[in-house]
Amino acid sequence: MVLSSFVPVSQESHFPIQNLPFGIFSSSAKPERRVGVAIGDYVLDLSVLVQAGLLSIEGCAGDVFAQSTLNDFMGLGRPVWKATRDRLQQLLDSNNAELRDNQAVRDQALVPQSEVTMHLPANIGDYTDFYCSREHATNVGIMFRGKDNALQPNWLHIPVGYHGRASSIVVSGTDITRPAGQRITPANKSQPIFATCAKLDIELEVGWFVGTGNKLGERVEIKDAKDHIFGMVIMNDWSARDIQAWEYVPLGPFLGKNFGTTISPWIVTMDALEPFLVDGPAQDAPEPLPYLKESQPSAYDVHLEVQLKPAGSAKTHTVATSNLKYMYWSVTQQLAHHTVNGCNLREGDMCGTGTLSGPNESEYGSFLELSWNGTKKLNMEDGVERTFLEDGDEVNLTGYCTSQEGYRIGFGDCRGKILPCPYQ
Amino acid sequence: MVLSSFVPVSQESHFPIQNLPFGIFSSSAKPERRVGVAIGDYVLDLSVLVQAGLLSIEGCAGDVFAQSTLNDFMGLGRPVWKATRDRLQQLLDSNNAELRDNQAVRDQALVPQSEVTMHLPANIGDYTDFYCSREHATNVGIMFRGKDNALQPNWLHIPVGYHGRASSIVVSGTDITRPAGQRITPANKSQPIFATCAKLDIELEVGWFVGTGNKLGERVEIKDAKDHIFGMVIMNDWSARDIQAWEYVPLGPFLGKNFGTTISPWIVTMDALEPFLVDGPAQDAPEPLPYLKESQPSAYDVHLEVQLKPAGSAKTHTVATSNLKYMYWSVTQQLAHHTVNGCNLREGDMCGTGTLSGPNESEYGSFLELSWNGTKKLNMEDGVERTFLEDGDEVNLTGYCTSQEGYRIGFGDCRGKILPCPYQ
Repeated sequence: MVLSSFVPVSQESHFPIQNLPFGIFSSSAKPERRVGVAIGDYVLDLSVLVQAGLLSIEGCAGDVFAQSTLNDFMGLGRPVWKATRDRLQQLLDSNNAELRDNQAVRDQALVPQSEVTMHLPANIGDYTDFYCSREHATNVGIMFRGKDNALQPNWLHIPVGYHGRASSIVVSGTDITRPAGQRITPANKSQPIFATCAKLDIELEVGWFVGTGNKLGERVEIKDAKDHIFGMVIMNDWSARDIQAWEYVPLGPFLGKNFGTTISPWIVTMDALEPFLVDGPAQDAPEPLPYLKESQPSAYDVHLEVQLKPAGSAKTHTVATSNLKYMYWSVTQQLAHHTVNGCNLREGDMCGTGTLSGPNESEYGSFLELSWNGTKKLNMEDGVERTFLEDGDEVNLTGYCTSQEGYRIGFGDCRGKILPCPYQ
Repeated sequence: MVLSSFVPVSQESHFPIQNLPFGIFSSSAKPERRVGVAIGDYVLDLSVLVQAGLLSIEGCAGDVFAQSTLNDFMGLGRPVWKATRDRLQQLLDSNNAELRDNQAVRDQALVPQSEVTMHLPANIGDYTDFYCSREHATNVGIMFRGKDNALQPNWLHIPVGYHGRASSIVVSGTDITRPAGQRITPANKSQPIFATCAKLDIELEVGWFVGTGNKLGERVEIKDAKDHIFGMVIMNDWSARDIQAWEYVPLGPFLGKNFGTTISPWIVTMDALEPFLVDGPAQDAPEPLPYLKESQPSAYDVHLEVQLKPAGSAKTHTVATSNLKYMYWSVTQQLAHHTVNGCNLREGDMCGTGTLSGPNESEYGSFLELSWNGTKKLNMEDGVERTFLEDGDEVNLTGYCTSQEGYRIGFGDCRGKILPCPYQ
C-alpha cells in the first residue's frame, strides 16, 4: 500500500508525501523567512508545527525551523534529517489524525505555494562546480580540440572541479542580466573587443548541498560521503561562452560564469532519492584510485529537461532531455575527492555536477552542444530558431524520478529570463 | 611636525599612529571577539571607546565595533572608515588629553598584543585570486611552455583571475597540513599515483578586502573602484605544485590550492596606504581596453619579504624580497574587471593579487620560481638546503611601506608552519 497524504497531490506533482523537499519561504501574511517542505501545491510550515507541539525531534532545537536558512538544520546530521522527514511523513499521512483533523493548525501550517516567495535555501559559503559528465566533456573536447584529444589526460582519473562564485547564486525566478566583457572576434584573435556576450548559454546541472562538513586537514572517506550530503537541487550554470573562451587559460572560467547561477528552491533529500539509486557508468578503463572507488550503486535515475520559452513566444519548447544517471563521477566521488587534500566543507556549501549531457543529440545539456558552438540552428515547431540565448528568452530546467508506483520525486522549477545588458 | 602617539611606538614597528589597521581580536580576560586597531605593541579596543563615549561616528552605530567580524563596518563605506580612522588618530595623538589622561579607559582599551588572539577579520563570502604579476606569470610560462610562449595571449589584456576557496582561509599562526592527492611521476605521465604532496610551496601575495559591494548585474567603474576597497593584508596562497599540475587543465587550480590560505590579521586601510601610491608598470603595448584604463597612479610601494625558519633550525632566513609596486594590473583594475560582467561583490569578500615576483632572482615570490621547479637548491648560510617546503618548516610573509619621515606602515606577520600529512 503506497503512502498517501490527506493533502491533495496530483499524479504529475513533483511533491508527493514520498518527497518532502526542504526549502526557505516567506509569505505576505508573514514576511519572516522560515523552513518549509513542499507537499502537493502547498508548503508545510515547520515553524508552525513546532509551535503547535507537533514537531519535536531529538537532537533538534525547534527554533532551527524558524530560521532564514537551512544551515543550522543541515549541521545536525543525517539521523536528525531522517527523523524529521519520517515525522513529517507521519503527520501528512492520510491515516494519521494529528494534523489532518486539527483544522486550526492546518490552516496556519499549510500555505498555498502560489502565495509564497521562495528564497535561497542556505547561506552558501562556498560553491564548487564539477565537470563530471563524460558526454559533455567529450562534446566540448571534440569541438575545441578534435576527436582524438577530446578528453584531457586527467579526466578519467579525477572528478575535475573548480571553484565558482557563491555571491551570484540566485533562486529560481530571478532574472539574469546579459553580461558584457572581453572577447575576441574571428577577424582578430589577438586583440580583444569589449562587447555584450553573443554566446549566452545555459548548463543543465544538478547541485548538491553539503549537510555536515569536515574539519580543515581532515578528509571524508567515500564510504561516509553520502551521510554528509543534505540533498540536491536543479541548477543552471549560466555561461557566456565567448567571454569564457578568451579568459579561461590557464586558471579556468571566471567572468564567463560568475554573473549568475540559478537553483531550484527545494532541496530533495538523499533519503527521498534513495529508491532511485542505480549503477552508474562502468569505471574500469581505467579503474579509479582506491580513494575514489565506489562499493555500491551511486548513480541516481533522475529524468531532466531543458525548456525554452523564446522571447515573444507564447509556447514553451522542451529543447533537450537528459538523465543524472549518465554522470560518470558520482556525487559521493565528488565529495571524497573534494576533501582528500584536507579541504574543509561547511554546512550549506553547494557543489554542481557540471553539465549533464546524455549520449544522444537530443540529450545535450547546453546550447553550446545543441547548436554545436553556433554552427547548427535549433528549429522549434513555431518557426523560432536559436543557437544561443536572446534577450527575453526564458529557460526552465526541471527534473524528477518516477517510481514503480507512478509517483514522482521531483525538483520543481529552475527558471530564469534573460534581461538585456544595461550598459553599452 | 610628524604626528605621534602617547602609546610608545618603536622606529621599526609596523603600527605607528599613521597606520591604525583594523582587526578582530579576543583576549582571555574577555573572550568575545571585537574590533580593534593596532598601535605599537598594543591593540586599541574600539568597543571600549564606544562604551566610554569617546568614539561616536556619524552614520556608524557603535555596536559595529562589538561584532565578531568587520563586515558591518565595511558595509558603511569609505567616508565612515575615514572618519573613524581620523577620530582614532585624534584620540591617540600625544597632544590630545581625552584618552591619554583617562587612565581608567586606557587600562581597559589598550590591550598588549602579546595577550590577544587574532581572528579572521571578516566573514569572507567569496575569495578570488588574481594572477597579476607579469614577472611571476612570465617565470611560470618559461618553466612550463618555454621562453617564446611565456605569457598567454590574454595576459596583457585581462587581469586573469579565478575563484578560490573561502572556507580554508585561516589567520596567521594557523598550522597548515601537508595535503595528499593525485599526481603523476616522471616514470608514467598518464597513470597518476596517490601520495602526499612533494612540491609544497608558498605564494607571496597581497589580499585586498571589498568594503562596499555592488548589486548583481551592475558594475563598478575603475574611477570609483578604490572607494570600494576597505584595505589590504599579506596573504600566503599555499600551493601543492604537483597536485596542481595534474589537475588544473582545463578548469584551473582546485585541490592544489584549497587546503589552506593564510592571511595577516590586520587590514591596512587604503587611507593609510594613500601616501605610498606610485606609478605602476607602463601599460602601452598593448594599451588596456577603456574600462581598465587608469587615469592616476595606482600602484603601491610596499616592500615584501619571504622569511623561512627551516624545521629544526633556530634561524630565520629571508629567502626573497619583493615589492607590490611591480604588479602589472592594479587592485583597482582587478576590481573593475571583476564587476564588468555584473558579478556582485559583497562586503568582506577578499581578492588576492597573485604571486608578487620582482624582476630579480632574489625577488621571486614562490619556491617554484626560487628553485626553478626544484632544479636549483636554495642554500641557506647555516647549511640548510631547500627546493620546496619540508614538514616543520615555518614561513612568514611580511611587508611594509617606509615613509620619508622614516616610519613604517606595516602589515605585521602572515605566518604558518607545515604539519605532516596525517594519512598514508
